[in-house]
Amino acid sequence: MQVFTKEELSELSVNVFMAMGANELDAKQASDVLTSADIRGIDSHGVSRLLGYVALWEAGRINMTPEVKIIRENKSTFSIDGDGGLGLVVAPKAMAIAVERAKQYGSGWGAIQNSNHFGIAGYHAMMALPHDMIGMAMTNATPFIPPTHSKEAMLGTNPIAYAFPAGSERPLVIDLATASVARGKIEIARREGKVIPKGWMVDKHGNASQNVDELKDGGMLTPLGSLEELSSHKGYALGGLVDVMTGVLSGANYGKWVPPFVSFLPILPNLPGKGLGHFVGAMEIEGFRGTAEFKSSMDHWIQSFKSAERVKADQEVYVPGEKEYRIKAERTANGIPLNDKVVEDLEGLKKKFRV
Amino acid sequence: MQVFTKEELSELSVNVFMAMGANELDAKQASDVLTSADIRGIDSHGVSRLLGYVALWEAGRINMTPEVKIIRENKSTFSIDGDGGLGLVVAPKAMAIAVERAKQYGSGWGAIQNSNHFGIAGYHAMMALPHDMIGMAMTNATPFIPPTHSKEAMLGTNPIAYAFPAGSERPLVIDLATASVARGKIEIARREGKVIPKGWMVDKHGNASQNVDELKDGGMLTPLGSLEELSSHKGYALGGLVDVMTGVLSGANYGKWVPPFVSFLPILPNLPGKGLGHFVGAMEIEGFRGTAEFKSSMDHWIQSFKSAERVKADQEVYVPGEKEYRIKAERTANGIPLNDKVVEDLEGLKKKFRV
Repeated sequence: MQVFTKEELSELSVNVFMAMGANELDAKQASDVLTSADIRGIDSHGVSRLLGYVALWEAGRINMTPEVKIIRENKSTFSIDGDGGLGLVVAPKAMAIAVERAKQYGSGWGAIQNSNHFGIAGYHAMMALPHDMIGMAMTNATPFIPPTHSKEAMLGTNPIAYAFPAGSERPLVIDLATASVARGKIEIARREGKVIPKGWMVDKHGNASQNVDELKDGGMLTPLGSLEELSSHKGYALGGLVDVMTGVLSGANYGKWVPPFVSFLPILPNLPGKGLGHFVGAMEIEGFRGTAEFKSSMDHWIQSFKSAERVKADQEVYVPGEKEYRIKAERTANGIPLNDKVVEDLEGLKKKFRV
Repeated sequence: MQVFTKEELSELSVNVFMAMGANELDAKQASDVLTSADIRGIDSHGVSRLLGYVALWEAGRINMTPEVKIIRENKSTFSIDGDGGLGLVVAPKAMAIAVERAKQYGSGWGAIQNSNHFGIAGYHAMMALPHDMIGMAMTNATPFIPPTHSKEAMLGTNPIAYAFPAGSERPLVIDLATASVARGKIEIARREGKVIPKGWMVDKHGNASQNVDELKDGGMLTPLGSLEELSSHKGYALGGLVDVMTGVLSGANYGKWVPPFVSFLPILPNLPGKGLGHFVGAMEIEGFRGTAEFKSSMDHWIQSFKSAERVKADQEVYVPGEKEYRIKAERTANGIPLNDKVVEDLEGLKKKFRV
């Protein structure tokens, strides 16, 4: 393990993105999304992904000089063609337009086609916060989850993020994958030889499995809710909701046709759409309620949940996004730890691109 | 058990609502929400609730002649004061305004304060469908779910509903409570002496319990995800999302202060807002993508999920809302079965109101 500052990781990733052909502005934007994940403790979506983006680019699946443009619009709503660019660049551009529309029309909503993996959904939702707006972001992703009663991977981890400004408290940031658990959690259990709870995964036949080795042999994640008896159909419906909003509404791919993030998996033939899809939105608080009053109620909401009676006296009740704010404070002070494998990957990228 | 037509149940409930003081238009609207639940097989939210609405009205908690008005607005966004009316009446009025705003600005979004229980969320979302719009509706509800690590009921079953128009297929209607299972499912298990799965409920100390009798002794539902090891924090975050959008944004009550549906539970002192809160929205498809093209993609989406490989050959893969459409067809042909307890309650109401 080695420890880095956000600036060090930013410099490296900006250089890598520029070596791949991005202009400086886009490279900085993409790097900011990745390192914001690292500083917030979402290690699976930070610079550890850099190698994956490079591999996709080498496979000719990413356009590093995209011309991102509005292809359809009606006042508060619009669609974006991401021109095959990095989602890390395309989504913030769409979100900036959503914020502008919200200034004009109270709210702004953008469906994005022809994009790629956009990093953490929360980053994009949080772009609304400085404008006293509620932000939201969704994306579809590599198919890895079968619907209830099916053994075919039809949905990705399809995250939903919402960010709400607060007053004296930190903003409430909801950012959740619609899978029951992240693939990374199962991989950690495998490395550490731990037994995983029933419901975290299914085998290639669609049956509940606790054999973590099966994840590399056709095993799949489960929808939020886990198995049928604990309402997996609800997680399936939420993942489907995200898939329709991001894929069908935008004209991107959906279901099993969503292009995989990993470059060694093939893209299916007869694609129904273009690239990967996102959906972003912003709503100005002021159109619903006085901003100061709203923020003060948010503080009260947060405080009341923080002080809800505990099951165990020493086990805190968290509000969504709180842990990430704490890790950010800690890592801003003490640096971001990266494991040896990631450090090695980054060293490899430095050599490869001579940066 | 007795069987009724939708028309019979409508006539009865219209008469009851009018006897309570509603005008004919409002009574018909409220009745349509209830009987739409019955015909779609969501028995827990149909005419079986009529007694509950009457009890709330008798307790002075419902205004049967509300003046529903816009109290704040900014083009695509607005807030509504429901004037203490039935949610069954207030929410459709708000949804009609959202649809109008969507015609003008591409989308329309309304936060509603000072309302009451609004029936099935899906009804309101589906109001957008005839306009070639995507509809959405949320509400907060009687606190009955503790956040992860807490033993205090801070959230209701807080449902999220989205409705998407399709072409030759039936619309995709997502309508899910953010609890892992409905209270009604536990009550049925209790009546039938069945063992419930671990994760459906917790006892008054916040610990997982399979003792269904504890539901009446401080027991509570769990958030979607069920217990901590299966990501209850995600269901908690979704329930919180709904609570903030419906309660905080509108100026209604939120968290443990949401007024309970059951009249025998007291309303807490020092309420932070007014009544119960909803949030509704509508987005015109045309602002994102050609409507015909979107509907054709929706058909393809639905067909691809319907034909996803099955775990068991005889176990169908459903798409969200499909079961309800099937029950509707069946009940339209053969009638709506009501159990003896509900029939008795309705007979009681008929006598009480001489209708």
